[in-house]
Amino acid sequence: MSLSALTKINILKQPTQSAWIEQAIANLDIILLDHSHCERKAAGVALNLMFRYPSYAPLVRKLTAIAQEELDHFEQVNQWLDRRGIPLAPLASPPYGARLKAQIRRDEPQRLLDSLLVSALIEARSHERLGLLGEYCPEPELAKFYRSLTASEARHYGTYWILADSYFERELVRQRLDELAAIESQILSSLYPEPRIHS
Amino acid sequence: MSLSALTKINILKQPTQSAWIEQAIANLDIILLDHSHCERKAAGVALNLMFRYPSYAPLVRKLTAIAQEELDHFEQVNQWLDRRGIPLAPLASPPYGARLKAQIRRDEPQRLLDSLLVSALIEARSHERLGLLGEYCPEPELAKFYRSLTASEARHYGTYWILADSYFERELVRQRLDELAAIESQILSSLYPEPRIHS
Repeated sequence: MSLSALTKINILKQPTQSAWIEQAIANLDIILLDHSHCERKAAGVALNLMFRYPSYAPLVRKLTAIAQEELDHFEQVNQWLDRRGIPLAPLASPPYGARLKAQIRRDEPQRLLDSLLVSALIEARSHERLGLLGEYCPEPELAKFYRSLTASEARHYGTYWILADSYFERELVRQRLDELAAIESQILSSLYPEPRIHS
Repeated sequence: MSLSALTKINILKQPTQSAWIEQAIANLDIILLDHSHCERKAAGVALNLMFRYPSYAPLVRKLTAIAQEELDHFEQVNQWLDRRGIPLAPLASPPYGARLKAQIRRDEPQRLLDSLLVSALIEARSHERLGLLGEYCPEPELAKFYRSLTASEARHYGTYWILADSYFERELVRQRLDELAAIESQILSSLYPEPRIHS
């Protein structure tokens, strides 16, 4: 299976390898359960930033909308789990999120810049991978569901990126995004053995 | 001003004193700003419980809906702040939330029971006080806004209470709720000097 023909997500350094989509479509139930966790975590990340920067009006307002959409997706994924008889259950996370989070510098304003760009990258990767599921998932209804989510995932990575541009100089944002994007692709260069959205 | 004619919220031991509503309507802008923080915090509490109990399906599903509504209210309150030219800003919290949180026992399953009941009480008090603002706020449009929120706040305290009943024996819930409700009213028995939703 070649993924080279797929629309490349500009922000990402490397496209997803075909091994990931093979692993994912062979494990659709686990991917759905992991996806549920991802949506809840994404809502949590947006809310945490709203708590950390309560006076940053553009950030607060835009992340409110993102958190609402993530919760809406979370509920939709949970309805899919219900329909397939998959109980909600904890699932060990792949190292992806923790490794990216470790790149966030501790001092402000770098902490804000890095937080926004790491979120932009995670959303961009989610957008790319949900798009792949929308294309390659062998169950037409489920594939359609994945396709229905991709537009808002794309908006989310744009929102985080634009927020970074609104609080920092464009050139600084571009440079740091370049560094973080290289790390993000490097983390995914070897496939995590368990099927996950971010394996 | 007598508040005795107002619908009493069954779950609460003592109704709000008239001194609170006098303080609140004399400080509508600060109350709006504090209300914004309260809605964000309420969404955060719901999300934290969803993170802590990811396998508890009824809790996860019902708290998803609550978190969504709190974020919706948060956005609506922020629009009111915008219209009145009040910038988003941090605001010192009254001791109410921290004192109630200190009542939550650390070991499970008591921790879950207490978390649900403390949230039920906070939502019930918010419901009562937003209702008072809906009745006594001297600005008709703002009063109407407060009235528009009270129905869902009532649903929220019901949801937390019903969740407690679904995970624990009814008599145990009733006893603990009784204890916590007494403490909640005691915390509010002397008015906090700064105008807040939970002064």
